[in-house]
Amino acid sequence: MNFTANDIAEFLNGEVDGDGTVSVNNVSRIEEGEAGTLSFLANPKYVHYIYETKSSIVLVNKDFVADKEISATLIRVEDAYQALAQLLEMYEQSKPQHVGIEQPSFVSKTATVGEQVYIGAFAYVGSNVKLGKNVKLYPHVYVGDNVTIGDNTILNSGVKVYQNCVIGAECIFHSGVVIGGDGFGFAPSSANDYKKVPQVGNVIIEDHVEIGANTCVDRATMGSTIIRKGVKLDNLIQVAHNVEIDENTVIAAQTGIAGSSKVGKNCMIGGQVGLAGHLSIADEVKIAAQSGIGRTIKKEGVVLQGSPAFEFGPYQKSYVLFKNLPKMREQIMALEKEINELKK
Amino acid sequence: MNFTANDIAEFLNGEVDGDGTVSVNNVSRIEEGEAGTLSFLANPKYVHYIYETKSSIVLVNKDFVADKEISATLIRVEDAYQALAQLLEMYEQSKPQHVGIEQPSFVSKTATVGEQVYIGAFAYVGSNVKLGKNVKLYPHVYVGDNVTIGDNTILNSGVKVYQNCVIGAECIFHSGVVIGGDGFGFAPSSANDYKKVPQVGNVIIEDHVEIGANTCVDRATMGSTIIRKGVKLDNLIQVAHNVEIDENTVIAAQTGIAGSSKVGKNCMIGGQVGLAGHLSIADEVKIAAQSGIGRTIKKEGVVLQGSPAFEFGPYQKSYVLFKNLPKMREQIMALEKEINELKK
Amino acid sequence: MNFTANDIAEFLNGEVDGDGTVSVNNVSRIEEGEAGTLSFLANPKYVHYIYETKSSIVLVNKDFVADKEISATLIRVEDAYQALAQLLEMYEQSKPQHVGIEQPSFVSKTATVGEQVYIGAFAYVGSNVKLGKNVKLYPHVYVGDNVTIGDNTILNSGVKVYQNCVIGAECIFHSGVVIGGDGFGFAPSSANDYKKVPQVGNVIIEDHVEIGANTCVDRATMGSTIIRKGVKLDNLIQVAHNVEIDENTVIAAQTGIAGSSKVGKNCMIGGQVGLAGHLSIADEVKIAAQSGIGRTIKKEGVVLQGSPAFEFGPYQKSYVLFKNLPKMREQIMALEKEINELKK
Repeated sequence: MNFTANDIAEFLNGEVDGDGTVSVNNVSRIEEGEAGTLSFLANPKYVHYIYETKSSIVLVNKDFVADKEISATLIRVEDAYQALAQLLEMYEQSKPQHVGIEQPSFVSKTATVGEQVYIGAFAYVGSNVKLGKNVKLYPHVYVGDNVTIGDNTILNSGVKVYQNCVIGAECIFHSGVVIGGDGFGFAPSSANDYKKVPQVGNVIIEDHVEIGANTCVDRATMGSTIIRKGVKLDNLIQVAHNVEIDENTVIAAQTGIAGSSKVGKNCMIGGQVGLAGHLSIADEVKIAAQSGIGRTIKKEGVVLQGSPAFEFGPYQKSYVLFKNLPKMREQIMALEKEINELKK
Repeated sequence: MNFTANDIAEFLNGEVDGDGTVSVNNVSRIEEGEAGTLSFLANPKYVHYIYETKSSIVLVNKDFVADKEISATLIRVEDAYQALAQLLEMYEQSKPQHVGIEQPSFVSKTATVGEQVYIGAFAYVGSNVKLGKNVKLYPHVYVGDNVTIGDNTILNSGVKVYQNCVIGAECIFHSGVVIGGDGFGFAPSSANDYKKVPQVGNVIIEDHVEIGANTCVDRATMGSTIIRKGVKLDNLIQVAHNVEIDENTVIAAQTGIAGSSKVGKNCMIGGQVGLAGHLSIADEVKIAAQSGIGRTIKKEGVVLQGSPAFEFGPYQKSYVLFKNLPKMREQIMALEKEINELKK
Repeated sequence: MNFTANDIAEFLNGEVDGDGTVSVNNVSRIEEGEAGTLSFLANPKYVHYIYETKSSIVLVNKDFVADKEISATLIRVEDAYQALAQLLEMYEQSKPQHVGIEQPSFVSKTATVGEQVYIGAFAYVGSNVKLGKNVKLYPHVYVGDNVTIGDNTILNSGVKVYQNCVIGAECIFHSGVVIGGDGFGFAPSSANDYKKVPQVGNVIIEDHVEIGANTCVDRATMGSTIIRKGVKLDNLIQVAHNVEIDENTVIAAQTGIAGSSKVGKNCMIGGQVGLAGHLSIADEVKIAAQSGIGRTIKKEGVVLQGSPAFEFGPYQKSYVLFKNLPKMREQIMALEKEINELKK
């Protein structure tokens, strides 16, 4: 299917800069662009590619100013990355969708199944499960007893949801996600032996949450572990029992959040970050990759780094001096020498 | 089902402080307490909630002293957290249990299956497998050839156990656990090419071990990777080939232990810790989250932090000074100036 | 099956040092050696075991010089670890292999299946999939639509490969590996809300790649995430969208590589390392465990440590001084005191 620059600009409410009759039938990255494809430019690091790309069309932000001649037709839009998302979404939706119930699969007689669902072969749906409309369970998905899943949610192959959990609408969980495994709770029963504390709570995940491959969200000891509306979790993240993550917070891969901690709204947490248990993080906090947070953060919007973390600017200053410690030691030794000479 | 404070105190061998006829039918966290529920207080951080909780009953440690009036009935016990564990265990055991063999499942004719097992749909039991009494294999569990699993062990949906591994009794493995994947062993075969070293050993896991979701325990190159009795592993942990973890050691999420290292008894290892290969850790060592251990630790009971780690107290002191490095540099510059003036 | 030292030496093109008629029927680690077994010695840390091992035969490097008497027969070879790999490979290949199609399994009618494949029970093979010769899909493997898998590749139980990915020949993926999950791409659509950027690219994995348990390789936004020939990835690694890892690079467990970064050939990356996005790493770079890389590394063969990382030697020097910061502060205070006295 071919689209002209004029067609696309109209769809995106953008402005053509160049030959509007040029057409494309695929997308490509700007640095790998080929004739007949559309690329986008959003990250300033990649600006130099626009002068050499072979892409026929490039989406750019409205305020982009070219330094040199560009052979591609530009389409100027409010936000190039978001416009790309819109285009790709249209493209995805045009593809054939899995629907219906493949065999063999296991659906309990007490389960309620909405219209237009897809249940892949070898998927398991336990007792009293409720699946909304257009839910897609790919092969090898496990949905434990009494779980509820909202409309249009997609569980990719091999997702596991333990009993009694509640999953919202419009969610996407990737392969290997585990929702509702037992929290890590043990009471010392004699000096060095542990007794399991049964985890009788559940997990509640609200609407529009996406969870990356092999991420784990543990069930609460009592009550609920809660992931609010719009949260995005990357791959291999650990969310412990009774954690709460508030709306639209985004967390990168391999981060871990220990038990009972609360993360505010609109936070951005880098990869491989660790949060200790029983603390809370204010809204809009940003945490640099590999940081460790050991205390409650009350200041909204603060940017943190280090393990234990403190504010980003001061951390950067201290780290520059850490690199220069050998020089600092030499300065101290020089001072000692000078003083010894002065004392003579 | 309702229980009075008097009933519960008798079961727990505790002492009622308040109205013993008050009854509950559920549990809740103290900060979310509601009438008709039982809560507990163990973590000192949460003491203030006891004066405002709406829970009808609160389990507390024997030595708890109230500062103000408390509306809930207290039950005083030796250890409130452990008493909670006992109560929740009774609650869990009262629930209906999965039992029997669901279809379709795959059980080799050469497998031996104990009494009262549960084998969920789509579970796979290979040749010569031996399953003890009351073993539960949830849907999508894979048990490779020649594996032995002890009585009452539970493998949640999607656990994978490779051939020849040995699993003890009373173990719980959560979804996505992989036992017996190949260790990471490659011999350089020319300058930059690698030849796989087949991993012909196995994994031995003793009794009462709990392993969290998506944790991996690799099989030994030769001999066995061993997890001793009572060890508790959280989610997303990496245990490499030929590692040994001794009794009752507890390890938090996302920690990794490299090949052939040995961890002692009763150690407590925080989250996101890394242990290098071919080292050993004495008994009762504690390691702070995000630390890195690069050498053998011979001193029992030591507390370590940092990457590479050293003792906790000195680490804390150094880290405070790291934060103050900009000030330290100013001090040095001031000294230089003063000396220059003295020299005049 | 018994083999004499003479037999083994001939197979390995090695030299017998001791009784060539001694025979073995198993392998063991040198520190756990028993009569009738063969061990090897490659790591210098383990040299002392050779004088006390009960193993009947020990493989050693040609240039090994004994300090004391050794009771075992030695076989001297060019490279003891590689020779072991050869022996174990022969041993593995002598074992019976899974082959054929177990039931129930799901193989789309439009899939093409090579000779001598193994498809385990509950494996799923989607539309238009192409499986090469001798491919092994263990139980619960998921192969999405349009995936191609080369000859002799093994996917262990529970591996998931999303649609349109391309897997080479002679690869081994361990349980829980997820290939082709969506990259983590979201465009801010209003102040604090995110719109998913559909990930329409794929993953390409070349020949001779081994991937450890529960490792994730995300599909590209556009184009391909690429893992080149001979790369070895350990367990629980995160490879984000549009990353490229070049030939024969080896990466230890729990490392994460953020989006669009490129790693050179023959690199060695330790465990729990983090690489930020949109950077590139030169060939033969070595990165110490737990390091964080925030910028492009252009110098081939450099060794890095720290977070953010700099060169290994300087890092070690700075870290020694970090440990000594309390002493450095005392020195500064002593200098201040002396200057004050001089000023009097």
